[in-house]
Amino acid sequence: MSSAIDGESAPTALLFDVQGTATDFHSTVREEAQRIDAGRHPDVDWAGFVTRWRDSYFAALNAAASAGTTWVRVHSVYRRALDTLLDEDGITDFSDTDREELTVAWQRQAPWPDVVPGLTRLKRTFTLATLSNADVSAVVSISKRAGLPWDAIFTAEMAGAFKPDPAVYHMAATYLGRRPAEIMMVASHKYDLRAAGRLGFRTAFVARPLELGAGGRVDVRYEEEFDINASDFLELADRLGC
Amino acid sequence: MSSAIDGESAPTALLFDVQGTATDFHSTVREEAQRIDAGRHPDVDWAGFVTRWRDSYFAALNAAASAGTTWVRVHSVYRRALDTLLDEDGITDFSDTDREELTVAWQRQAPWPDVVPGLTRLKRTFTLATLSNADVSAVVSISKRAGLPWDAIFTAEMAGAFKPDPAVYHMAATYLGRRPAEIMMVASHKYDLRAAGRLGFRTAFVARPLELGAGGRVDVRYEEEFDINASDFLELADRLGC
Repeated sequence: MSSAIDGESAPTALLFDVQGTATDFHSTVREEAQRIDAGRHPDVDWAGFVTRWRDSYFAALNAAASAGTTWVRVHSVYRRALDTLLDEDGITDFSDTDREELTVAWQRQAPWPDVVPGLTRLKRTFTLATLSNADVSAVVSISKRAGLPWDAIFTAEMAGAFKPDPAVYHMAATYLGRRPAEIMMVASHKYDLRAAGRLGFRTAFVARPLELGAGGRVDVRYEEEFDINASDFLELADRLGC
Repeated sequence: MSSAIDGESAPTALLFDVQGTATDFHSTVREEAQRIDAGRHPDVDWAGFVTRWRDSYFAALNAAASAGTTWVRVHSVYRRALDTLLDEDGITDFSDTDREELTVAWQRQAPWPDVVPGLTRLKRTFTLATLSNADVSAVVSISKRAGLPWDAIFTAEMAGAFKPDPAVYHMAATYLGRRPAEIMMVASHKYDLRAAGRLGFRTAFVARPLELGAGGRVDVRYEEEFDINASDFLELADRLGC
């Protein structure tokens, strides 16, 4: 693991993926599903349900990209995917209100415990911004509820395209008024870091082994190709000298 | 003065103009001009110079709008206007570095003394965002230096057009996921509030009598047409029940 803060190429701004990297969406959405279900379907594996829901979201984004659609409202993506999954599982007694409430849980994702203290330390030295595929309103809502101390919120919605489209990363660099080499992308997803790295951004991988819940299959292997590999935002702050 | 927080139409988010409304650009830029000039031109009225500079900025934005140009980098606007003003005043010994440093002062505007305590109170109840004509990087820089606790930063750059173009206000409503009636525009400039009000936003006028320095000509008259008229952000917080 090399240091990312050598001389001229030291970053001055950090961009953070949000869903999964900064937040434990799996616990938040699973708990909300269990609350709304209220024991109506005791045989449903809600942890697995949330993992499938997240998979459907990625599939829908990929399908949109393949179809040449550049941006769609993520809330709608989650809502449509939910209907499909409930149908698949034969769950017909979730009302429209239940479905809407459950989908809104994605706008209430709780942060991992290291996130607020880590960002608070990092903020003293770096400009901190999000770079999320979620809707702007969702990232604002998540951040306000959790007290995430961003200097700015940037999302795919502002670029009219989703990560890993280069337009999203270029937008963030323009808005920050910095060259890619002055900016470090922080994410728990390697496709996101690799897309940023190809454009000249610095990269920091943060392992989130519980991203898909206990026993979830998550790639947490450290890689030489990233400038930093860290176990959480506190180790990231250590590595960046904060 | 009517209350803006009656029943259904109560706002849940506040949008703030930045330059002049939240910041005392006139003092910041004048002091920086005097520092850079370092007594070379004792006869120059630097307070008047900054007012003329600000006027040139508005003229350039209006000219761009008339020409059908939707957005230009504001830093460049200020920089070109500075060259013209220095020429007019026969000031030829400001180097490129001097000129660049002086223009960057617009990215270092200090807040009025009521702004941080006022926003801190308002943030407990409302989602707070900027809606500025300044570049994103400038608003991020101003906000980080001053510790302005925004939940989000929106600027004209994100809409590709300048206020009072309706596209700028519509963008903010979309990003906030709210209807205009749920959002209040806060500004010390009436053209900004009137543009927002025509689109259905609530409006709050904040008087800034020193916006153009001591003795500067500023319209600070309260108007019935605005939902709130206030002397500063603390009175605004009072009026909104925070």
